[in-house]
Order: sequence, then C-alpha cells, then structure tokens
Amino acid sequence: MQNADTPAAVATRLLDTIDSPLDLRRLSLIQLMQLADELRDTIITTVAENGGHLAPSLGVVELTLALHVVFNTPYDRLIWDVGHQTYAHKLLTGRRERFHTLRRFKGISGFPKRSESVYDPVETGHSSTSVSYGLGISAAKNILNDRSKVIAVIGDGSMTAGMAFEGLNHAGDLDRDLVVILNDNEMSISKNVGALSSFLSRKLTGRTIRRLRDHIEDRLMALSSVGENILSVLRKSEESIKGFFTPGMLFEALKFKYIGPIPGHELDGLIATLENVRDHNHGPVLVHVITTKGKGYKPAETHPDNYHGIGPFTISDGSPIKKTGTPVTYTKVFGETVCRLARLDKRLVTITAAMPDGTGLSPFATEFPDRFFDVGIAEQHAVTFAAGLAVEGLRPIFAVYSSFMQRALDQLIHDVCLPNLPVIIALDRSGVVGADGPTHHGVFDLSFLRFIPNLTIMAPKDENELQHMLFTALNSEGPVILRYPRGSGEGVAVDSSFTSLDIGKAELLREGDDVLLLPVGNRVHPALKAADHLAAEGISAAVINPRFIKPLDDVLITKWAAHTGRVVTIEDNIVHGGFGSSVLQLLHARTLLLPTRLLGYQDQFIEQGSQTELWAKAGIDSNGIVRSVREMLA
Amino acid sequence: MQNADTPAAVATRLLDTIDSPLDLRRLSLIQLMQLADELRDTIITTVAENGGHLAPSLGVVELTLALHVVFNTPYDRLIWDVGHQTYAHKLLTGRRERFHTLRRFKGISGFPKRSESVYDPVETGHSSTSVSYGLGISAAKNILNDRSKVIAVIGDGSMTAGMAFEGLNHAGDLDRDLVVILNDNEMSISKNVGALSSFLSRKLTGRTIRRLRDHIEDRLMALSSVGENILSVLRKSEESIKGFFTPGMLFEALKFKYIGPIPGHELDGLIATLENVRDHNHGPVLVHVITTKGKGYKPAETHPDNYHGIGPFTISDGSPIKKTGTPVTYTKVFGETVCRLARLDKRLVTITAAMPDGTGLSPFATEFPDRFFDVGIAEQHAVTFAAGLAVEGLRPIFAVYSSFMQRALDQLIHDVCLPNLPVIIALDRSGVVGADGPTHHGVFDLSFLRFIPNLTIMAPKDENELQHMLFTALNSEGPVILRYPRGSGEGVAVDSSFTSLDIGKAELLREGDDVLLLPVGNRVHPALKAADHLAAEGISAAVINPRFIKPLDDVLITKWAAHTGRVVTIEDNIVHGGFGSSVLQLLHARTLLLPTRLLGYQDQFIEQGSQTELWAKAGIDSNGIVRSVREMLA
Repeated sequence: MQNADTPAAVATRLLDTIDSPLDLRRLSLIQLMQLADELRDTIITTVAENGGHLAPSLGVVELTLALHVVFNTPYDRLIWDVGHQTYAHKLLTGRRERFHTLRRFKGISGFPKRSESVYDPVETGHSSTSVSYGLGISAAKNILNDRSKVIAVIGDGSMTAGMAFEGLNHAGDLDRDLVVILNDNEMSISKNVGALSSFLSRKLTGRTIRRLRDHIEDRLMALSSVGENILSVLRKSEESIKGFFTPGMLFEALKFKYIGPIPGHELDGLIATLENVRDHNHGPVLVHVITTKGKGYKPAETHPDNYHGIGPFTISDGSPIKKTGTPVTYTKVFGETVCRLARLDKRLVTITAAMPDGTGLSPFATEFPDRFFDVGIAEQHAVTFAAGLAVEGLRPIFAVYSSFMQRALDQLIHDVCLPNLPVIIALDRSGVVGADGPTHHGVFDLSFLRFIPNLTIMAPKDENELQHMLFTALNSEGPVILRYPRGSGEGVAVDSSFTSLDIGKAELLREGDDVLLLPVGNRVHPALKAADHLAAEGISAAVINPRFIKPLDDVLITKWAAHTGRVVTIEDNIVHGGFGSSVLQLLHARTLLLPTRLLGYQDQFIEQGSQTELWAKAGIDSNGIVRSVREMLA
Repeated sequence: MQNADTPAAVATRLLDTIDSPLDLRRLSLIQLMQLADELRDTIITTVAENGGHLAPSLGVVELTLALHVVFNTPYDRLIWDVGHQTYAHKLLTGRRERFHTLRRFKGISGFPKRSESVYDPVETGHSSTSVSYGLGISAAKNILNDRSKVIAVIGDGSMTAGMAFEGLNHAGDLDRDLVVILNDNEMSISKNVGALSSFLSRKLTGRTIRRLRDHIEDRLMALSSVGENILSVLRKSEESIKGFFTPGMLFEALKFKYIGPIPGHELDGLIATLENVRDHNHGPVLVHVITTKGKGYKPAETHPDNYHGIGPFTISDGSPIKKTGTPVTYTKVFGETVCRLARLDKRLVTITAAMPDGTGLSPFATEFPDRFFDVGIAEQHAVTFAAGLAVEGLRPIFAVYSSFMQRALDQLIHDVCLPNLPVIIALDRSGVVGADGPTHHGVFDLSFLRFIPNLTIMAPKDENELQHMLFTALNSEGPVILRYPRGSGEGVAVDSSFTSLDIGKAELLREGDDVLLLPVGNRVHPALKAADHLAAEGISAAVINPRFIKPLDDVLITKWAAHTGRVVTIEDNIVHGGFGSSVLQLLHARTLLLPTRLLGYQDQFIEQGSQTELWAKAGIDSNGIVRSVREMLA
C-alpha cells in the first residue's frame, strides 16, 4: 500500500514507506509478507556490518509485524523482554533511516530506549523484566481508567529467571488485563536449561494426551457393551480435561488463560489470534508462540547459538570477519585456565547462568560434564547453589558478566560472605563492554562489592596474571571476586606453571618521585604507557598494580603515596564508592592528606561505543592519565 | 527414655535429657509427643521474655522432631528456609542451656548459624534460599559419592520468591536426590499472596477433582447401557489422571515427585512418610506438609500475623509488654504520612513485598485498597512493577526493609534509574536493627546505592523531617531513596502541613570552629548531643544535617569543612563506600585536604544486640562521637 500523497512514494521497497506502525495497518497480507522479507534483508545486512543480536531479531519478524498491525501502539504498550529482538520493531517505528548506526557510538541502541521512541515504553537489556514492567503498566492503566492494552513478549529462556515467575505469580493474583506472549524458540542464548523448559517441549508433543486417550478408549472398547455414543461422551469430557495436559498447565496453575501453541511465522494465524485476544480477553492471558531463532538466514537457523549475538560477518556464508593479530581474550584464558586447574584439583566445579559460551566455560563443560552446571538465567540461584557446593568442600567458580551479577548481590552478601564460604566469582565483562551499552557495561561492580566483609577482590593486569589469580583464589579459604574485562588481553606470554600470589600484596611496577599511579586491572598497561610519556616530559611517575582491590596493600601504597606526595587512581568503573574511593579512605585512615585524583566514570550511565572510544572519553586511557597528571602538577 | 548413666538423669523434663538428636532416636512416640509439649513450653516462655519468631517455630515442632528422628543429622543436611522457625531445632541440637540468651547481645542467634552448631550447615535469615543451598549440597555429595541426604524445609510464603522457583527449576533438571519439605501454613508473614498460593489452597479442597468425576459419571449414568463395570474402569483410569489435579501439579511440572498433603502435627504419620522418603526416594521429591502457624498457643493460632515476630509479651493472654513513653516509630509516621499524602495526591500508590504490617502500610491498604499492592516475597518484581506504574504517570512508593532491598539492586539500576523513573523506595530498617542480627541489619544500603546515577538519597534526622522528605520525594521527577531506621523516632512534634525541601540542600544545625560533624539520619541527634558535651569541654563543633546523601550539598559542606579544618562523618552504615566516603570524595574534588574521620561500622558483619549496644560498640553514639573528636584534637 503506497502513500499517494508524496512523490517519494514510488519506492522500490515497501519498508521505505513505513514511517510508523500506522502505515503497516493499511497493508495487505501479501504486502506484509513482502515486508517481512525486506525487514530480514535489512537486519542481516546491518548486523553483518555492525554486529548485533541477529538470531533473536530474525525469529520475531512476523510476530513484530502482527503485534503492530493488531495493537494500537504506542498507546497499547508493547514491551520486549531483554530487548535484543527489537530490530524489526525499530525499523517499523521511525528508526529506519538511522538503523545503519545500530550499536555504534552515538548511534541507535541495540535495545529499547525511551529516549529513542515513544514506541519503547521501557528500557531493557537484562532478561525477565517484561512481565513485571507490563503488570505495573497494566495496574496503572486500571487505576487511570485507561483501557488500552499491555503486551509483554518474553522468550522461553527468560522464563527460567525467578523474576519472571514473581511477575506471573502476581499477575495471576491481581487479575488485570495483560497479554504475555511466550516466544518459544527452545533456546535462551544457548540451549535452554531447566525443568520448565523440558516441560514445555515435552508437553508440546502431545504424546501424553494421546497416550492417555488411547488408554481409556482401549479399555472401554474391550467391553462389548460400550457403544460409539459412550466414546463420544467420553471424548467430550476429555476435552474439558485436555487443557491440563497442554503446555498451558503451568500457566493455568498461575491463573493465566493459555492460548497456543501457535506457529510464529504464519502472519495470518498470528494476526487472527492476536485480534481475538485483543477483542475478547480479560485478565492475564499467555499466548504461546513457536518461533525459529535465526529464521530466514540459513547459517543462523542451523547454529542459532553462534548467531545469537555476533560481530561483523560475511553474508554469503555467515563466516565471522575476524580482526587478525588481536591477542587472545581474557575469557578464553579463563576458560583454558579452569580446565588446567580442574585437572589438578578435583574440588573445582564451575557454574554458568545460561552463558557457557560467553563465559568461556564450554571447553570445561565438554571435558568435565559432571563438574559443570548450567543453571539457566538464574544468577540468584547460581550464587547460593555455589555456596551449597562450597559447604561440602568443593571449590565452585561461578563465571558471570559483571552487570548480571547485580542480580545476586543479596545472595553474595547473605549466603556466601556472611558464612565466609570459598566461592569464586569470575566476573567477566567488568568495565565498559562496548556496543551493548549502558545495560551491559560492568562499571558498578567495584562499588557494589568492595564494602562486603570477608570478600577478597582481585583484578589482573593481563591474561597471565589472570591465571595466577585464579590459582590463588582456588587455594584461598574465603569468597573471592576475580574481575576482568571484555575483549583481548595484553598479548603477553602465559606461564606454563601457576604462581600463588600473596593475598593483599600489591606489585610495584615502576618507581617514581612526582606522582603515584594506581591503576586497576586493565588500566595498568595504559598507566605504564602514560608513565613513559610523562618521563619524556620530565615527570617521574611511580606505578603500583594493586592486584587486590580488597584487601588493599596498606604498606606499599602508603609508602609510595607518601614518597611521591600525589596520587592518581585509575579504574574502569564508576569512581563513586569504587577503588579510588577505597584508596582515599586508606590514605585518610593513615592521615596522609595528599592531592588525589580519582579517574573513572562520573556519576552518569555510560553510553554505547567501542571500549577505546569510551575509555578515551572518560580520560582513563594513557592520554587521559597523562593529561590528569599534567593538570595536577600545573 | 532416661539416661541411667548420670545422676542428672532424674529430670522432670524429657527435654533436659536431649543433648543431641541421637537422644531423640531412642524415644517412643508417646515420649516424642511429650517432648513436643515441652518444646512448645520452652519456646513460649523464652520468646515471651526475649521476643522472637514465635508462630513460625510453634508451627514446626512435630516436623522438627520427625526430621531429626528419621534423618541422620548432621550428616544428612537439614536446611531451614529463612530460619526463623528453628527454635525447636536449636533446643534439640545442643543449644538448650543457652536458649535463654536467644537473640540477646552475645547470645544465640534467632537464625541458623554455622558457628553455633554442626547441625546448622548454612546461614539463613532471608527467605527462599533453601532449595538452592540444598541443591548445591546435593550436587556436591553426588560428586563426592556421599550418599547422605539433603532436606530443605521451605514455607509456602517463601515459594513466592523467584529464587525458590529458580532452585526448583534447576533441581528438576539436574535430578539429584533432594527432599524439599513444603511447610504449608497458608501464610508467609501476613496472609499469603500470589496465584501460586491460591492455587495450592484451591486444589487442596479437591473440589475440582470431585466435580469432574461427578460430571463424567453423571453423563455416563444417563446412558442406560452403561453398567457398573464401565464406571469402575473409568474410575481406574481417573486414578491415573488424578495426580494432575492435586497441588502437586505444579511441582510435577518441574519434575519433582510429589507426596502429600500430609498433616503436619501428627508425629506418627510424619515419621512414617519421611522414613519412606528416606528409604525409597531418588531424585527431587517434594513433601507437602500442612501445619498451623502458632500451633499450641491459642493467641498465636488465632492471630498468626501478630505473633510472627514479636517483642516480649504476657503468656496468660498474649498481650505485648509495651514500654511506656517511647516515641512513635518511624514506620508508623511513614504509614500515616502516606495516607495523608494519598488523600492529596491521586498518583500515589504503594507496594509491599509481603510486609504490610512491618512496613506500616496496613492502614493505607485499608483506606486505599485499589492503590495498594502486596506482591508477595518478590523484591525484584516489586521494583520493576513500580517502574511500570511510574511509566504511566503514577507515583509508586515501595516500602521495604534495607536488607531485603539487597535483592533488587539490578532492578533499581536497570529498570528504574537508567530510565530515570520517579519511583520512591521507602527504606525502612536502615542501620542496625537489633536482635535479628547480621542478616537483617541494614548497614550496607548507603554503599550499594550511592553510586547509582540519577538516584536521590535522603535520610531524615527525625520523624518530622521524614514526612517532609516523603512529600519532597513525591514531587520530584526521578527515583528517590528515603532511608530511615527501625524503632522509635526522636519524639519531636510532627507538623500538620508539608514542607518541600530543596533537593541537595543540607541544613546547618549548629555553627562551630574546631570541627565539622556530619551525621546522617538518626545520627543527627546524637551528634548534637555530642556537640553540647564538647562545648562544655571548650571544643566548638559545627553540625550539619546533610539531609541528602546524594546529591551532597557541595557548598555548605565545603564551607564549614574549610572553616573548621576537621571533619567527622557519622553514619549507621558500614563506612566502606558509604556516606563518609562520599564526603571524602567531595573534599578531595575541591582539594580540601583535611583530617577526616569516618565513623560507622568497620569491615565486618555486625552481630546481634540492641541498637543502643551496637551503636555504642561502633562508637557512633554521642559518647563515641565525643571520643573521636577528642582524639582528633589531641
């Protein structure tokens, strides 16, 4: 359906005529199907260039179209759980022309953003928030006598998180209008985990229902007196029981009306079902939609894990475009190190919350299947489960992204650190992560961890120190956080044997007289580089790698702080309550009142962009460090 | 069964002969029943004196006996969810003689503690951790080829928390031996909430099953050709379906074997069932036990809410022993203020996570039932649900205890502060809470909150300022934390009209020349008293009530810090990353290098004791402040 009012209407692509979902609602089914193809082309082309969440977005193209056709967005509120599947949604809601900037510095976000569009009522990025958000919106609409609708789209993976259950449980109780679309692709990020998941797929076969019906019919048929009319009565009664045997059982137990499962790539059926829900539903309803992750792009359909979130790739065969010569990642060194350590230490077991690939644990899972646990998207459970393993003398390592660890603060404090159990948290993706932006940056962890009693916090300056720290953590008797960044290491050689580090002992890397640089983790090498620059300007900088954010090396740090008379701390973390703040406390406790600069992120959420761009912007790369020292000495 | 070896064996009470569960296993059923009575007497007498969790502990006396009789504790691991129901457990596991010190300073804890007994394998206090702990222990035992058992006892209230679901979901998947006892008293702390809860009780009636069977039978009987033999066949087939209609449906969906419901106060049945589970079960099993909260003490049976956690009371009639003349609590002023504000502002809605009484919201719930939401024990959901309400223009206030807010850090960061939504968190029980001890002290919140961008944090110096701050929060456009302590206010008059405070403006309470005191919230009055003491010694202390921990009043604080040349911060919070640390950062950012002392809790978990005892021990009462100032000036 082309818009005859404007000359630009003679478009080669239908997509170029869609400025908002209003334009969609005029299209025929055939046109919508064409549009689905165009959306897929655009998504594939853009992600091949920029990287991004390909498979999730390809899986919901038809669902996205159907939702915007049927519901009166943005007045009806459409909430996408996690939000990594919103590329089609973005293309249809006024962001088509900026779509090529997807996930770039200053570009549009890979996730829903309130500041980008009225079609994004909430912000997402972490999983399993959509039911809670949706129910809150629905409850508010009820109070405000606003009869527009609320739709939350949530994947089966996100359903494994307790938060989703909390939302469903409350929704069933509150009984407000709420449409939950279960986008069931039998995957979260990797293969899905948990009893719920196998329940969904087990029941989907319908085998149980058929077997039971056959069983009853056989028994009745064996009795000669039973005529066909009785069977038909029985079948009718069966119909009323049948609901209990569908995948809806669980949701009906939670007082949701259950509809489905329905095929998720057939637009006509989707539209008809959603219209029905829109017009006739009251109270909470769950629509179970079966989709294929990566739909419409062969490599992604075949290996949805690999195309969940990816970097740039070649469209013809789906092969990743690798930068050559980049050093091995911290994640990979971690993954290899746990395997090497596990061969030596039978106590070592590992845990992931649905991220075996992302955390580098897949090789461990293959080599030690009985010592590996994937708990699903369930960080709270993961931490306390680890505590249970530690109670019996094992040495659990929970590998998790920094920003997802925000989900398990209470469990770390209450279930691990209070009883002082030897649980190791391998905190990957600490610091800024790049294109995924504010929801995924790990820039708060030093602040929300360093105050916890009994906890040791380490950060390696490079991938070699990472392995020695992991070895050290494994042999310590209390809880340990091992914090390391996303991406490549420093390209240093990795020792073949392990060295135990002294807990709480820092490393003097460079002597100096004018200023003490205290860089954490991945800021150590930039600080050394800065020290070189400064030396060329006649400024003599000492550099200490603290190694331990907690406990701090009181002796070494105060000695060199006193000697130089000036301190600069550098951290890939927000400065508030972070490492620099702990150094300030230490110096004051020793009544060393010295000019001290805390470099790190200031009091705001950090935008998306490459790590290099974000480090430079925050002034925590070597240039920024040089600049700060110059200012201090000026 | 008396122990003939010792003269002390001629005890009047069986309980005095029980030094460990080994002694239990020799008793007859009649003796165990007598012991149950004695346990109840001891629990009632002790809690009447010390205060404590009466109703939960009375409800599981028989269950506790049965578990220790049947299972080989401590080798079999017994985990009590929350742990507030463990008084009988403590009395039976070697803590009888210290039981009178329950919840006192230096006494035994009201919750399980690893340091107290080998019969306490884990530490608890917060809800819904037992399944995760238990599964971790079970998985470890499996790896270690240890065939002893793991039993987690969890209440139906705790089941509403997502973490319990995460644990069950993983347990069903992992398929290790794990006995989960669902202690179903149809209450959490107050009346239970959520679809799950009504599902449990709905199904318990068995009405659905009976109605369906009757329906099918009626239809078949209406057909003349149907004889009794067909009905019996049908009934047999029904038996095989019946499992799906029991309360076990949900748990079976999660791959648990389901046993029950069984009566929770009949020792013989409990023992027989548990023996059966012990000897014949493999994989995860859920035993559904029906108990009565407060069982055996009439007032507690009648009003289990009121006797969940209580202060000292008179045994004869259950009436609380009130201290006379104590000022109104912060909680009560909060509860009254929200009602007054709600009458003026239709946008105001409130949320609790299963604590309507504890948070003071019960009067609001009565007056504004449509604007009040009890979401169950589900802090994660509560925060994001609040965000949803705020998206539509309402002003939600989530009232929650500080230590439980640790459960919802990610939701606060990700779902509220990133989109900058006007959600108010009324953070009750901030600071030390007294007898409940380390799991319940709210001594971390300033540290885990102050680094979050967009967040405003206020703390009132007294109950009057509390109401003005709540009014101020209601009219601000971003997220606000309002932090206040457990217990009585300062006894000041509460104004009849509301005053709006300037965000980020502190209040100079007292001018002075020698030192600046910066006390937070409930530390303001002790600081003023300290200033009086110091004045008598010739030391002139300025006192500023910061009101806002974030944003800090840069101008007023730096002015008086510079004037006095010395700063002492005082907070009912751990000093690491807390208020004092933010003041240090502020002073350094202004290159004001002044001697600064941070008073608050040091780097360890805080024991139980009265607030007065704990404040004194930490040196944050007026005497402690005086002492610190003297030391600084010495």
